[in-house]
Amino acid sequence: MTRILGIDPGSQRTGVGIIDVDAQGKLSHVFHGALVVGNEASFPLRLKRIFDELCDIIAAHRPAECAIERVFMARNADSALKLGQARGAAICAVVSQGIAVHEYAATEVKQSVVGSGRGDKTQVQHMIGILLGLKGPLQADAADALAIAVTHAHTRSSLARVGIPRTAWRRGR
Amino acid sequence: MTRILGIDPGSQRTGVGIIDVDAQGKLSHVFHGALVVGNEASFPLRLKRIFDELCDIIAAHRPAECAIERVFMARNADSALKLGQARGAAICAVVSQGIAVHEYAATEVKQSVVGSGRGDKTQVQHMIGILLGLKGPLQADAADALAIAVTHAHTRSSLARVGIPRTAWRRGR
Repeated sequence: MTRILGIDPGSQRTGVGIIDVDAQGKLSHVFHGALVVGNEASFPLRLKRIFDELCDIIAAHRPAECAIERVFMARNADSALKLGQARGAAICAVVSQGIAVHEYAATEVKQSVVGSGRGDKTQVQHMIGILLGLKGPLQADAADALAIAVTHAHTRSSLARVGIPRTAWRRGR
Repeated sequence: MTRILGIDPGSQRTGVGIIDVDAQGKLSHVFHGALVVGNEASFPLRLKRIFDELCDIIAAHRPAECAIERVFMARNADSALKLGQARGAAICAVVSQGIAVHEYAATEVKQSVVGSGRGDKTQVQHMIGILLGLKGPLQADAADALAIAVTHAHTRSSLARVGIPRTAWRRGR
């Protein structure tokens, strides 16, 4: 059984999802939530909240691996800078606990969860609910974070099936 | 005596400078350096290096306050994202040690160090050498980091002179 933390970082809202995957590739839901920041007095304090809250979630659930969405393009330089800082804070929280971070492109996540790189957000939310047996609607950022964790679970188990040693593909990312 | 850490973050090179300022506003040089990242296997590992090395520098020198350059504009979305992540990692290293971070615009730093918001990099390096009694040329990123620390030293002592309580302006930033 491996516990995977998925993170969908944003400058105002960071989605967090945790799942377990067993040796047969069976997935189970552990935790999800969205961390909303923005009322803090300054941007450094916002980053501190992201960092601290993620450290708390990691301490509570002890994931072994982490997956995060790779960002290729941002709308503009200003939003890229804000998103970058939030992403940097999230990654630091994870790596400061000695957990490896794996990056997946948005198209890889959609391909893995809905079977097509061009699936939309609603499809991802719907499929995550089915895959993890969740009832009721799922908040979008939390669903994205769970989807990233599921993508990592699928990728690591398919790599294991073809016999690629884990240390090798870990280093390759 | 207050010890101030100045940081000039970058995705490939992060300048670090530490100075002491006494009750009379007299400055003295403690440490400077530039942390070069880029050979790491992945971007998360690069952020981990920035985070870890800054934590080590903080543990070794125990600064009480930190100042960092405020970024208004980046060249493009891609470089903004990379810079943002490095900046997020640097800020997290500081705030995770319970140290407050103060932000200064580049024009404030130039105004404070060379007396004009439009001074150039060479002037800043030259004046920092004089202000801190350093001999020989100073690496540009380290000079910028020391300049940010000097700006904070100047700002906090002028605020102290007009009797603004420290907690108030701390919170206001």
